[in-house]
Amino acid sequence: MIVVMSQEASRDQVEAVLRKIEEFGLQTHPIYGVQKTVIGVIGDDKTKVVETMAGYPGVEQIIPILKPYKFASRETHPQDTVIELSGVRIGGDKVVVMAGPCAVESPEQILNTARLVKLSGGSILRGGAYKPRTSPYSFQGLGEEGLRYLAEAREETGLPVVTEITDPRKIDLFCEYADIIQVGARNMQNFVLLTEIGRSGHPVLLKRGPSSKIEDLLLAAEYIIKEGNRNIILCERGISTFETYTRNTLDLSAVAAIKKLSHLPVVVDPSHSVGIANLVTPMSMAAVAAGADGLIVEIHPNPNAALCDGSQSLDFETFSALMTKLRKVAAAIGRDV
Amino acid sequence: MIVVMSQEASRDQVEAVLRKIEEFGLQTHPIYGVQKTVIGVIGDDKTKVVETMAGYPGVEQIIPILKPYKFASRETHPQDTVIELSGVRIGGDKVVVMAGPCAVESPEQILNTARLVKLSGGSILRGGAYKPRTSPYSFQGLGEEGLRYLAEAREETGLPVVTEITDPRKIDLFCEYADIIQVGARNMQNFVLLTEIGRSGHPVLLKRGPSSKIEDLLLAAEYIIKEGNRNIILCERGISTFETYTRNTLDLSAVAAIKKLSHLPVVVDPSHSVGIANLVTPMSMAAVAAGADGLIVEIHPNPNAALCDGSQSLDFETFSALMTKLRKVAAAIGRDV
Amino acid sequence: MIVVMSQEASRDQVEAVLRKIEEFGLQTHPIYGVQKTVIGVIGDDKTKVVETMAGYPGVEQIIPILKPYKFASRETHPQDTVIELSGVRIGGDKVVVMAGPCAVESPEQILNTARLVKLSGGSILRGGAYKPRTSPYSFQGLGEEGLRYLAEAREETGLPVVTEITDPRKIDLFCEYADIIQVGARNMQNFVLLTEIGRSGHPVLLKRGPSSKIEDLLLAAEYIIKEGNRNIILCERGISTFETYTRNTLDLSAVAAIKKLSHLPVVVDPSHSVGIANLVTPMSMAAVAAGADGLIVEIHPNPNAALCDGSQSLDFETFSALMTKLRKVAAAIGRDV
Amino acid sequence: MIVVMSQEASRDQVEAVLRKIEEFGLQTHPIYGVQKTVIGVIGDDKTKVVETMAGYPGVEQIIPILKPYKFASRETHPQDTVIELSGVRIGGDKVVVMAGPCAVESPEQILNTARLVKLSGGSILRGGAYKPRTSPYSFQGLGEEGLRYLAEAREETGLPVVTEITDPRKIDLFCEYADIIQVGARNMQNFVLLTEIGRSGHPVLLKRGPSSKIEDLLLAAEYIIKEGNRNIILCERGISTFETYTRNTLDLSAVAAIKKLSHLPVVVDPSHSVGIANLVTPMSMAAVAAGADGLIVEIHPNPNAALCDGSQSLDFETFSALMTKLRKVAAAIGRDV
Repeated sequence: MIVVMSQEASRDQVEAVLRKIEEFGLQTHPIYGVQKTVIGVIGDDKTKVVETMAGYPGVEQIIPILKPYKFASRETHPQDTVIELSGVRIGGDKVVVMAGPCAVESPEQILNTARLVKLSGGSILRGGAYKPRTSPYSFQGLGEEGLRYLAEAREETGLPVVTEITDPRKIDLFCEYADIIQVGARNMQNFVLLTEIGRSGHPVLLKRGPSSKIEDLLLAAEYIIKEGNRNIILCERGISTFETYTRNTLDLSAVAAIKKLSHLPVVVDPSHSVGIANLVTPMSMAAVAAGADGLIVEIHPNPNAALCDGSQSLDFETFSALMTKLRKVAAAIGRDV
Repeated sequence: MIVVMSQEASRDQVEAVLRKIEEFGLQTHPIYGVQKTVIGVIGDDKTKVVETMAGYPGVEQIIPILKPYKFASRETHPQDTVIELSGVRIGGDKVVVMAGPCAVESPEQILNTARLVKLSGGSILRGGAYKPRTSPYSFQGLGEEGLRYLAEAREETGLPVVTEITDPRKIDLFCEYADIIQVGARNMQNFVLLTEIGRSGHPVLLKRGPSSKIEDLLLAAEYIIKEGNRNIILCERGISTFETYTRNTLDLSAVAAIKKLSHLPVVVDPSHSVGIANLVTPMSMAAVAAGADGLIVEIHPNPNAALCDGSQSLDFETFSALMTKLRKVAAAIGRDV
Repeated sequence: MIVVMSQEASRDQVEAVLRKIEEFGLQTHPIYGVQKTVIGVIGDDKTKVVETMAGYPGVEQIIPILKPYKFASRETHPQDTVIELSGVRIGGDKVVVMAGPCAVESPEQILNTARLVKLSGGSILRGGAYKPRTSPYSFQGLGEEGLRYLAEAREETGLPVVTEITDPRKIDLFCEYADIIQVGARNMQNFVLLTEIGRSGHPVLLKRGPSSKIEDLLLAAEYIIKEGNRNIILCERGISTFETYTRNTLDLSAVAAIKKLSHLPVVVDPSHSVGIANLVTPMSMAAVAAGADGLIVEIHPNPNAALCDGSQSLDFETFSALMTKLRKVAAAIGRDV
Repeated sequence: MIVVMSQEASRDQVEAVLRKIEEFGLQTHPIYGVQKTVIGVIGDDKTKVVETMAGYPGVEQIIPILKPYKFASRETHPQDTVIELSGVRIGGDKVVVMAGPCAVESPEQILNTARLVKLSGGSILRGGAYKPRTSPYSFQGLGEEGLRYLAEAREETGLPVVTEITDPRKIDLFCEYADIIQVGARNMQNFVLLTEIGRSGHPVLLKRGPSSKIEDLLLAAEYIIKEGNRNIILCERGISTFETYTRNTLDLSAVAAIKKLSHLPVVVDPSHSVGIANLVTPMSMAAVAAGADGLIVEIHPNPNAALCDGSQSLDFETFSALMTKLRKVAAAIGRDV
């Protein structure tokens, strides 16, 4: 950690800062420059310095050198984490495709979709039962009924199920019905929810918040790992920018960056990122080429009649064609779908 | 609502869209332009059209004309909403100053602060007991103990208390201890929490999320009002942008805009917006000049030793000076502090 | 075009707006909704309505339906534009790789680089002679001397050259030395420069500005085409967002979107987008998978000693390896490098 | 400057970096932490280190400690710069109001406006003759004719004139006609133009680019000062963000920040920031309360008929009322309008 003193800081202020840091049991290495003094700080736990000294007289800036996350970091865990569930391995050689409707609407809709996912070579069924929606007047999902329909589709097809939780009080219900619990972008910093999921030990798909830096996402994962749960799949799903043509701006650099910074698997949600069905195919292919460990794609037997996000859902034919294309791109980088 | 058909849409596709909209019990007014057809849609509930027809063949875009929020809108409720609690009126002529530490640290700290707030002319005491922090390794607050210290400070000074909730399971606890329940920026779209607060009827301070549009904030308020709770104070606290000098970018235009769009009172949190103590005073003055109904400011008896956000907290002397300046600015626009 | 009248607009105001629009020789189609009146406008040139009526009494909003660019639009020119120069075709089946140093530093440096580009299968040599730099204290390039070194490297290797112009007074010089004139991100809306390039008819690589929407980029292209120059290559190079890990946020969705909206070829600059050498390879592969017609990559014989952007330049070995990988990804989508 | 070595950096790599830095004539102060080595660098000109060593083996990050701008910095020039022209002082006690139409349209329009500005207590007349517009099909201004009308208005009213330049070849023309040459947001990093203005010594109003950090703006100013021209007025005019309600997001914190970081005067353009006439008044008041040295406001005798930006222009009555309000706010902070 580097503490930068302001140009106007007096020698007394520098001394006071040095003493204070040393009181925390840390070593100080002051460097007296021509215009400013900077203090290198060495030692194990520097949280206190960051938390309490930013407002100290004469302190201009505190610059952390080490990454603020530990367990999520590749530095502390160099090998890739691979998550195994019902025969599917996420984070291994194979690119995993999760697909399904935005919302579970009926037993037939989810069952038909599950069959198609299975048939096309997808590995996991997605579908929302509890839907967080920007407007309270939008369809909010079927709730527990939707979870049951998902379980029925799993039973028939053998596909594991990923579905979104929004309420920490429902954690047991989700552990029962979902193979992977999804934390949506709006809840990425819902630390109460993250902590419950951490304690459950259940596999989790953690979506990046629309204004969250890569570092914030890894710190959110840290909340879960800290409780002993390493079964975390990170998900890039677009960030909030000034561009209005797409719903969000898909940040594929984040995929490549996270693969360097962390050992956790990363998947991409092209559907919510772009919000336009005809961009989903090229963005899915780009995601795989960028090194994503999987995709989570919205598909619907009849997008024209979808109860939510119809404009970004692929129909079955387009999805099947996408799977064929993905196999070629995956092969080009030495992976499989 | 306007449905824009793509240039390539066939006459059959246009007909199909018209029929489908009419099935929902709505009137259609097609306009056949040289290049594109657009369809005006009239009727009461157009939610279904937005939700299901965006993916319809030939549909390029659906443009809502009416605002998506109702109860929060000034169009449906022209008079300013004024929230009254323990003799304080929020949203009236007086600019209300809420002040206190980022986190409650000890009975002495919060009590000393409360006395100063009272003495300087502040109206409400703020202080965090449950602190959502980006890193799991940062100080997370004293929890229920912190709530008790706040209640003690209230008892002595008579100042109502505002403090942040993060867990819907704690709603009863907060209704007991807090005069105003704060929903933080990270939880602005935690709809489970919003719904609980809506049901409680308790006064709430709802902070704008860092990537939330003004419209998203008003829709979040709508989740609360829809449950029958109109006691909502909106709070601008900065948005996420590319600028790194300040912690967030304070969007004061949002204050003026919300005063036009909604009847709800709006306050500004200059401390979290800028994150730098020496910018808090000018931004507080600007907020009042922009028409804010109040401020929520971080102060600390000894910012150098604060357990969180020390770099953005004002010391007591600076806060007292700020109050004097605010009185002048408020007077200049015909208000009082 | 749709003119939305505010809820408070009087019938007289609506009438006045209708008359005014009709004075411009346009047809009006008013739709009287329950709460608001909207007016559909049909006719050829609606610029005047947009420009003059936004402030008209009772007018709430003017919503254009047609795209504001014409010649750059795929609607008016459905076939892909292919730009041919010295045997290289940009926008055709082959993915074109442009590579070279950020700045031309010496005859040896640029010549060695050109040989490597040629040898590895790259098609075009890039190199800056006039460097726009954020700080006036950074290296600003060798100027005309740099252009001469580029010309020498072209003479030996036969590679066409792309290099950046910053001054409209230098247009003749650039037409002499450069096969493709580059307009940098900072100058994307330097309309004086765009107009000069438009008049020159010379091939141009137009980079997207860091806060420019896709539509703004296409309108900038329109400034060039309007003067009669269709030889335009668009370039995505990252946009400005809150993420600080990468230099900019590479928006690959823009590539897929532009391919739908426009007939012009699109290339991607992964180097300036991410600003970190070890992310350039995955992002290059992703760009090709997303449908980019080419790449413009920074390489340097010795990145450690580069006079600018060393941290994002690939060394020769990494670049050769990248070329091999790109060939596989291109093949997977039925293209060639 | 701090050079951070990566955790994997070998001792040899650290040594090589130390030697290289010392070759540049700089002092090194390595600090060997538990996980990483950081190197403090002391000395006068560290540009070379930043420019060439970011790609050095083992180097993870280079963190500058000193500000990259010099002459624009308050650290090197503690007193406020005050710019005097024709009896108007910008940057002094008085808040200076510049007002006028987006575009000069006719002799009558600009003369009527100038009279109103004068009458209401405004100090400077604004008006565009050369208009950079996003679309080539929008009105581009009257050109030199517009400059002449401005000069006529100045002659009659005595008001100095500020108008925008877009072409470095027109610098002499602007020095003749304009009292202050405006550099628009799109040209903030048009370094060719900045350099010409720097050499001219002419007063300049430099607008912040929509994706420019505060630091970038000060570095753009540095390009001008470096040529010997200190007559620079900085202008905040909103930045590009995800919020779409306003045209841009006005960043008033930047005003307060720049007053701390630089000695140059700062004015605010509320009209382009928000783009909505009815938000201009509150934002103007907020700007003055935040410490702005002036405002540049769009007004028009008949906003309904304006050839550009009618929706954000104030009519004369509203402008006069604004001036009255500004006087009160200015008085509240001990200034005058």
